[in-house]
Amino acid sequence: MSNDLINRRDLDFQLFEVLDTLALTAQPRFAEHSRETFTAVLDTAQAIATDKFAPHNRSADENEPHLEDGRVRMVPEIGQAIDAFVQAGFLSASYDFLEGGMQLPAILSQSAMAIFASANMATTVYSLLSMGNASVIHRYGSEAQKKLYFEPLMAGRFFGTMALTEPQAGSSLADLKTSATPNADGSYAIRGNKIFISGGDHELSENIVHLVLARIDGAPPGVKGISLFIVPKFRVQPDGSLGPRNDVALTGLIHKMGCRGATSTLLAFGEKGECRGDLVGEPHKGLSYMFHMMNQIRIGAGLGAVMLGYRGYQASLAYAKERLQGRAPTSKNPAEPPLPIIEHGDVRRMLMAQKAYVEGGLALCLFCAHLIDTQTVSADETERREAAMLLDLLTPVTKSWPSQWCLEGNSLAIQIHGGYGYTRDYPVEQFYRDNRLNAIHEGTHGIQALDLLGRKAFMQGGAASQLLARKIGKTLEQADEVAELQEFTTALNKALMDMVSTLQTLGAAMLKEPNRALANASVFLEAFGHTVIAWMWLRQAVAACRALALDATVLDATEQAFYQGKLSACRWFYRWELPKTRAWHELLRSLDDTVLTMPCEGF
Amino acid sequence: MSNDLINRRDLDFQLFEVLDTLALTAQPRFAEHSRETFTAVLDTAQAIATDKFAPHNRSADENEPHLEDGRVRMVPEIGQAIDAFVQAGFLSASYDFLEGGMQLPAILSQSAMAIFASANMATTVYSLLSMGNASVIHRYGSEAQKKLYFEPLMAGRFFGTMALTEPQAGSSLADLKTSATPNADGSYAIRGNKIFISGGDHELSENIVHLVLARIDGAPPGVKGISLFIVPKFRVQPDGSLGPRNDVALTGLIHKMGCRGATSTLLAFGEKGECRGDLVGEPHKGLSYMFHMMNQIRIGAGLGAVMLGYRGYQASLAYAKERLQGRAPTSKNPAEPPLPIIEHGDVRRMLMAQKAYVEGGLALCLFCAHLIDTQTVSADETERREAAMLLDLLTPVTKSWPSQWCLEGNSLAIQIHGGYGYTRDYPVEQFYRDNRLNAIHEGTHGIQALDLLGRKAFMQGGAASQLLARKIGKTLEQADEVAELQEFTTALNKALMDMVSTLQTLGAAMLKEPNRALANASVFLEAFGHTVIAWMWLRQAVAACRALALDATVLDATEQAFYQGKLSACRWFYRWELPKTRAWHELLRSLDDTVLTMPCEGF
Repeated sequence: MSNDLINRRDLDFQLFEVLDTLALTAQPRFAEHSRETFTAVLDTAQAIATDKFAPHNRSADENEPHLEDGRVRMVPEIGQAIDAFVQAGFLSASYDFLEGGMQLPAILSQSAMAIFASANMATTVYSLLSMGNASVIHRYGSEAQKKLYFEPLMAGRFFGTMALTEPQAGSSLADLKTSATPNADGSYAIRGNKIFISGGDHELSENIVHLVLARIDGAPPGVKGISLFIVPKFRVQPDGSLGPRNDVALTGLIHKMGCRGATSTLLAFGEKGECRGDLVGEPHKGLSYMFHMMNQIRIGAGLGAVMLGYRGYQASLAYAKERLQGRAPTSKNPAEPPLPIIEHGDVRRMLMAQKAYVEGGLALCLFCAHLIDTQTVSADETERREAAMLLDLLTPVTKSWPSQWCLEGNSLAIQIHGGYGYTRDYPVEQFYRDNRLNAIHEGTHGIQALDLLGRKAFMQGGAASQLLARKIGKTLEQADEVAELQEFTTALNKALMDMVSTLQTLGAAMLKEPNRALANASVFLEAFGHTVIAWMWLRQAVAACRALALDATVLDATEQAFYQGKLSACRWFYRWELPKTRAWHELLRSLDDTVLTMPCEGF
Repeated sequence: MSNDLINRRDLDFQLFEVLDTLALTAQPRFAEHSRETFTAVLDTAQAIATDKFAPHNRSADENEPHLEDGRVRMVPEIGQAIDAFVQAGFLSASYDFLEGGMQLPAILSQSAMAIFASANMATTVYSLLSMGNASVIHRYGSEAQKKLYFEPLMAGRFFGTMALTEPQAGSSLADLKTSATPNADGSYAIRGNKIFISGGDHELSENIVHLVLARIDGAPPGVKGISLFIVPKFRVQPDGSLGPRNDVALTGLIHKMGCRGATSTLLAFGEKGECRGDLVGEPHKGLSYMFHMMNQIRIGAGLGAVMLGYRGYQASLAYAKERLQGRAPTSKNPAEPPLPIIEHGDVRRMLMAQKAYVEGGLALCLFCAHLIDTQTVSADETERREAAMLLDLLTPVTKSWPSQWCLEGNSLAIQIHGGYGYTRDYPVEQFYRDNRLNAIHEGTHGIQALDLLGRKAFMQGGAASQLLARKIGKTLEQADEVAELQEFTTALNKALMDMVSTLQTLGAAMLKEPNRALANASVFLEAFGHTVIAWMWLRQAVAACRALALDATVLDATEQAFYQGKLSACRWFYRWELPKTRAWHELLRSLDDTVLTMPCEGF
């Protein structure tokens, strides 16, 4: 298969050599699965992504959804692609056989989603939101709600959204104003405005299920007074048939820099006073329910960022092998034929950086999926608890690190294409535009930084951070046995010590001067992220060395080069990227307050 | 005046406090000028930029130039803006009074161009190219050529382009194939294809003057066989009147990610065998002539990058002051009113970073303009020679540093706007798209890096690098007298020592393993750039301290805050950015060859 969307050799390496995904088939839940069924799932995803998702990636960008007579029109290929996706069972892939699912491990369904995201991020968004929405109803909804909403969502007849953000509140969910007034029949009258609602209106499905955060009249202020409601576009009758339009009005489409195929909307709930919502779970607990979905979607955003980077890497790699231009710096003879640009040092640097970013980022996303599976099926309670804790700690990093560095990768992919890369005749400029979204939605970079430093790093007395250090320590032990990896173990050990020392300083500062300790949270997120990715690279290097050592006699040249490539990329990350953490840690430990003490008028 | 386009207080500070621009008026060439005439020039530029350039920045992006019946159509405001620009005399601003110019110092004409670029980069491109083109003809053309082309260019009747790049050759000018065959009448028949020619066709002017690089039949291969030709769209008769169309065909428009208002074209010269070109200067010296223009344009590209960053900074600063959202991390009371987001630490970080990048970048561009003036008017021959040498050394940095870091600034401006920043309803996403061009055109980042490390850093036995070190040393001496600046002098001294040590290692490596020494040239460019910008910040800090010390009794609160802001931004750059150079230098001195030894199949 073509490597356009993902290097399947790399994906197999990550799934079956770095992670022991096959071990999952020993668990009762996954006993029906095997390497063959896993491969078949990925093959199907790749075939649909190639045939149905990739071809309209550019045309949906050029012809973004628009209004015609109050309806949202979009290129028809979006609907056709999602149909194929649903038909093949990807929407419900991780649910039980009994619920019509494939009972697939999260790591496999994430791998499949990675392939779709690579092919067409914008079209994939519709499915991602439906899946996230359905999972909330599945988990917190009543039996009636599951029947009325979850089942049609899984069948692809209804699509879902997540309606959190309000124009005045932005990231500050405490300031949400949308109200919910109890009706006599047990439903609620919803009233308020939401913004940036992806998939908020379209003609792709019979109905759209909005999950809306709102305040029940008299609820406490702040985040403790937020409840969650199901608000369908068309009311659903008790027998499941569609009733009249609910009072949800599309008040505008948002025109974005990228990810244009995914319609983003402004919605007005209850302008006529007739918007009916159905409470999910208990009152005032809406935010915690939504965060179940939010955490999934955050990892999904990170994976999307990785895959946009991955696609750009593959595109620029192919270009660099084909494009003939220039000669070695030492060549003074213009009669010599030009070289493929992959021979130039600076082009190689840009390819290597992309490889290190995207394959490192993919490793992290798959590791998180692996933690989800451990949490779901492990027989060991401690293992389950630890997996949940580690996942919690790593979520902000998995969301933000790829959003930053795989975007940088997209920039390098443009650069390798030179002037051509800046034109819309080549795909790389779109990847760059599309990917810029990922540092913003589902909690900005700054929000992730506060989540990591202000909440996760010190939660339960720093238990999660300590757990992470132990896990990294285990990889260091494995690597210690391989002479070739000495350079990396030394460096990662140092970075880890640096992290521990920073955590001590910041932990103390948090008690005395929390505003100051948190002011540089973004730098902490960067340092933390680079250390985690270095760990991900060491894990890959260990697996590569294992393969090179065991199979030296049977590995063909292609396989040798593959593993050598992994070791080189690891080396590159350790020599070019990891050393940056030193300066970041010094800055963090100095509790620098330059930005806080700046007079406003000094800007 | 509004600070939208540039903070005039900052510009004045840079012109009259950091640089002693007023001293130029003591030179005979600039004797007619004064602080008042300088201010009047800037006021006029700002008025025209505000009224004529800024308003169509978005509409020209949305309605990019397109073909209608073979003609290039664009929004009419582009032509109206350039008319106003020409009428006000900016096209010829730096030429002699006798030639119809304003005899303005380069630093003032650059400052004016900065304001136009901030208002509308794409529209400014047409003028920039005409000015660069005209300056080549002015310098290297015959008297007849000046009469026929330079004069109408200066009058704005003709526009100019620079036609270097060919589809197959890209950055590798040695591989240009466009041919020039001598005609009996002394002209040349030009034949070949050029790509990415900005302003290559339009209806803005009576005629378009292409400066075309081509090889005269039988010329030596490589860069030593390239000649420069004037190739007008319409032939110009000896009396200056327009003759028939020359055989220059527009074969396509290029659709870019940004900077869309500036039409970019594919041109075919001599498809019918009837393209007539006029040789400029001597045969085979075309590249050196073109580089006269290229160096100007490179500094212009850097300045453009700065100003797109500057505009984004001003936009996000205004937004951060207005937008109310969230509370301090320590506030648990949702009943408290939300804060303007400029109060949040992470928003302040993003503002500070932008300030440090764009004001540091502007200082460098203006410093280069100051060197041009010194080169032009200094009575001291050594001073002139040193200015030329320093300008040569700094050109690749001035082109590339802002293209990288002020683009990063644009990304931060988006981030401060949150979801809104990613929409086309706010201007910041366009700045980001527009600015991505600057690391590509006029010599990519990688080309600049090779220019700096492979050519400039070691030219004349490293004389330019030594000169730079002496100049930085002078600022360090000045700063040494101010206790408040101790932290910075120590840090810059260290960075400088690091640079010297790296140059020694790389200089030795260049003799033994040039491919290896040059492989990491981009990292050298980064380290060098950060050191130069740190110098620029120290120069600003010295000026700020001088003002704060002298005028403590008379400075009002606004002025105090302005200078404190400069000191804070300097501190930020020294604490957050300069320390990165340490890791870069260590990497450079290790002569890391990870990218070179990677097997191609390992990617």
